[in-house]
Amino acid sequence: MASVGYGPAFTAILTNQAARAVIEAAIAAAEVTDQRYSVAVVDAAGHLNAFARMDGAPHITIQVTTDKACTAAGFGMTTQAWHDFIKDDAPLATGVPAQIDRIVTFGGGIPITAGGHPIGGIGVCGGHWSDDIRIAEAGLAAIA
Amino acid sequence: MASVGYGPAFTAILTNQAARAVIEAAIAAAEVTDQRYSVAVVDAAGHLNAFARMDGAPHITIQVTTDKACTAAGFGMTTQAWHDFIKDDAPLATGVPAQIDRIVTFGGGIPITAGGHPIGGIGVCGGHWSDDIRIAEAGLAAIA
Amino acid sequence: MASVGYGPAFTAILTNQAARAVIEAAIAAAEVTDQRYSVAVVDAAGHLNAFARMDGAPHITIQVTTDKACTAAGFGMTTQAWHDFIKDDAPLATGVPAQIDRIVTFGGGIPITAGGHPIGGIGVCGGHWSDDIRIAEAGLAAIA
Amino acid sequence: MASVGYGPAFTAILTNQAARAVIEAAIAAAEVTDQRYSVAVVDAAGHLNAFARMDGAPHITIQVTTDKACTAAGFGMTTQAWHDFIKDDAPLATGVPAQIDRIVTFGGGIPITAGGHPIGGIGVCGGHWSDDIRIAEAGLAAIA
Repeated sequence: MASVGYGPAFTAILTNQAARAVIEAAIAAAEVTDQRYSVAVVDAAGHLNAFARMDGAPHITIQVTTDKACTAAGFGMTTQAWHDFIKDDAPLATGVPAQIDRIVTFGGGIPITAGGHPIGGIGVCGGHWSDDIRIAEAGLAAIA
Repeated sequence: MASVGYGPAFTAILTNQAARAVIEAAIAAAEVTDQRYSVAVVDAAGHLNAFARMDGAPHITIQVTTDKACTAAGFGMTTQAWHDFIKDDAPLATGVPAQIDRIVTFGGGIPITAGGHPIGGIGVCGGHWSDDIRIAEAGLAAIA
Repeated sequence: MASVGYGPAFTAILTNQAARAVIEAAIAAAEVTDQRYSVAVVDAAGHLNAFARMDGAPHITIQVTTDKACTAAGFGMTTQAWHDFIKDDAPLATGVPAQIDRIVTFGGGIPITAGGHPIGGIGVCGGHWSDDIRIAEAGLAAIA
Repeated sequence: MASVGYGPAFTAILTNQAARAVIEAAIAAAEVTDQRYSVAVVDAAGHLNAFARMDGAPHITIQVTTDKACTAAGFGMTTQAWHDFIKDDAPLATGVPAQIDRIVTFGGGIPITAGGHPIGGIGVCGGHWSDDIRIAEAGLAAIA
């Protein structure tokens, strides 16, 4: 029996160089606002790869950004899409937000993909979640 | 005063051989779908007995499957039944999902019983909870 | 700038099929002893991939096997090698066992490698650590 | 009675701009070695401020770097100095490593100070702790 297998197209990895470029671009976009953000990038397994917290950003944003990135990387779906997915399904609407560790179901987490597969995720927290999405998108533009 | 007591006839246990047969049957049923599942089987105490995660199943399914199995084994009730049980009882509807560690109140966790007593539970995660139920039932068919 | 990078030779993944074969082989080897073992296989990120606990194996073995596998996968080094690495270095001998989450520094955790890179790990617990190593090696023989 | 007090002149803070410069300098120094490091910078409160994990650095380094930085910032003392401080004091030698959350007592964590007061800390993990110290010092040179 073969000792290992080769996944369909999961051979790409998110480099730390790319992750740091995402962080820098997100912070640059955040600096021209009047809000203070944290930004996290995780790998496909949900482990932290790069992170920055702007001066004055609440320490609670550390957990929220990391969990948003983890949610996005884990399922290849934005955190906002999770809200839409669960809102009209009563058992999920009740259960998911409270019962799944590290899940976040409001905007600000976006998967990073290669060949259609998630290879990581970005999470942003500091403004309203609609603002967080904009900063996350600005970060991802660095590697588009 | 008696130093020890004897509980009712909970003498049946779920063997690991049976648990692994449940896992194999659930994975076989899952492989003919286009979704990627994790499957966990726990004993009556809620402790993990057997587990498998298909290639590509999100790592977050590890926690969800284990907690679904634990919920089912702990109360001898499916996780979906928990939703029905709490949904029209305001204190429970608010409190249970957030306040009981390891509870899951959407489908995919089913108790394993012997003589009417729970001896374990199966938990499945990877699709919508209605899909998860089907995979769990396919697994349990191996020991029916 | 390139959106992603390609790791040197981290393209192989441990399939769940291979992981379950490892578990079955380890359990088969354990069944001819008079001890009761748990066996865990994790992926390169330390996330659980497959698991089995023999009838009568203490529930505490769940955590120990998973952490041994995680230690082995995380550093590409056996758990026993960690003992040798730290034993004559006073700061590490004191600090590592107590201060690094999920590390285990006694035998029973072995990395699973492909092309010289760790793609996962096996952890065994149930006997003395020298016995655990033997059961782990018997499991790995299934994918040698 | 005064409703609030004013502490001594701890008005200096570690900016995120400085923290990211420290990370970049540490990573640059690490890239010319054959080892893979993670680097964390925390603020005076021990909360993460900036972080990077090189390609191939074990995920376990995430926790170790963050805790080393937290230990250094929390007490204004290097993690290696903690080893020297406790090693000949039996109650501390036994108790500190196991009993204080987030403490690390081997090298790689260095406080960042301003006016003699700790305003943060750097933590590095990836090589032997003597290597980790060198990378941490290279990072701090960016803000010397």
